[in-house]
Amino acid sequence: MPLQPKIEVCLSPVMLPLYDLSDKIVVVIDILRATSTIGVALEHGALSVIPVANVEDCQQYEGEGYLLAGERGGAKVEGFKYGNSPFEYMNGAVKGKDLVLTTTNGTRSIMLSKDAHRIIAGSFLNLDRVCEWLSSQQRDVMLFCAGWKNKFNLEDTLYAGAVAWQLSDKFEMACDASLAARHLYDCSRSDLLGTMKQASHYKRLAGFGIQQDIAYCLTPNQINVIPVYSDGRMTSLVE
Amino acid sequence: MPLQPKIEVCLSPVMLPLYDLSDKIVVVIDILRATSTIGVALEHGALSVIPVANVEDCQQYEGEGYLLAGERGGAKVEGFKYGNSPFEYMNGAVKGKDLVLTTTNGTRSIMLSKDAHRIIAGSFLNLDRVCEWLSSQQRDVMLFCAGWKNKFNLEDTLYAGAVAWQLSDKFEMACDASLAARHLYDCSRSDLLGTMKQASHYKRLAGFGIQQDIAYCLTPNQINVIPVYSDGRMTSLVE
Repeated sequence: MPLQPKIEVCLSPVMLPLYDLSDKIVVVIDILRATSTIGVALEHGALSVIPVANVEDCQQYEGEGYLLAGERGGAKVEGFKYGNSPFEYMNGAVKGKDLVLTTTNGTRSIMLSKDAHRIIAGSFLNLDRVCEWLSSQQRDVMLFCAGWKNKFNLEDTLYAGAVAWQLSDKFEMACDASLAARHLYDCSRSDLLGTMKQASHYKRLAGFGIQQDIAYCLTPNQINVIPVYSDGRMTSLVE
Repeated sequence: MPLQPKIEVCLSPVMLPLYDLSDKIVVVIDILRATSTIGVALEHGALSVIPVANVEDCQQYEGEGYLLAGERGGAKVEGFKYGNSPFEYMNGAVKGKDLVLTTTNGTRSIMLSKDAHRIIAGSFLNLDRVCEWLSSQQRDVMLFCAGWKNKFNLEDTLYAGAVAWQLSDKFEMACDASLAARHLYDCSRSDLLGTMKQASHYKRLAGFGIQQDIAYCLTPNQINVIPVYSDGRMTSLVE
């Protein structure tokens, strides 16, 4: 059997410094909701999404052509018109605009991955597209779960497991985290939403009335774009 | 329903600073092999096991009454008579002695837990005893996986899941990591060794010819002691 590229899974931003990313494709994963929302915004015509670390950085972009959006702790940043829900970006308002986005976990994780060979944003919404593209690259992959405030979370790990599961025949599972994530997904895939309803993040976010967001963000293959990061912004991957 | 104590799972030493341990019982978990071996040494008559950070600290105990033991990267430390295999401590040699032990992950993790209300060493070998005792304490529990060089590992997480699974009716699963570990164990419990044979650590350790250790360390309820840490050493819990 020819040598296969490797899949690793990093379960939290605090574990990322343990890995050398320089030759790897990093798939940043923040299912609820940054990487789902970034994909939807690009699908609906945003020119780019600029991930920034904090609200102040976001406000520096105030002006024509930029649409500022932010979320902290699950809720829209006070005074911001746009938050972190994919449904906010489906009505055409984002078309031709650059979206400047700050979130609790996801946007920071994109920036932490800056040493990678390439960075893309993964979500259930573009699951098959991501898997097909990774297959075509023949390069080692790091599935990087943004988690929640540096802790493990279930939805990001389930997505990492979904990718690992789909790519099992073409990639080597190169660490225990990739095996565990794949196994977890395999045991849960018949009812992802049911599994998620037990999770801390579900309960936390459900308090903000976003059950609809959660159900949508767990639905595979709703969009066609793959967001790719370069020069400080995410744009649709052009092959 | 009365308020239940909580179970959390910490998947790596680098995540431990995210938690306040002061009111919690920490169960340190290094299935392959520190916490398994510490239990076996105490079961077979060691007065105490003194976990130390490195080989030099270990050597300072050289002298009568102390038995020095060490492992690095899975292999016995050069020049040491004893290593990190539970089978080395079953022949009576450790009886009445203090064992001074340094290992790659487990002994360091015990020391990292020093702020906890109480620290015990968990392993499949004393699974039921640990669960019964935790049930009796009515206190929040942190299941702390030592992992491998700060990365996630499968066997420690499976054990955390086994404890969470057994205590599901009496404790609240207070984080996604406890839910995921429990789910992973539930899917794997019919064939723990088979699951482990896919794992990186299995392949690494199998290279040292310790398949017998691995099979033993995954076998529930072989010993009766619960190692508890106090004043720099682990001794058998006396109730």
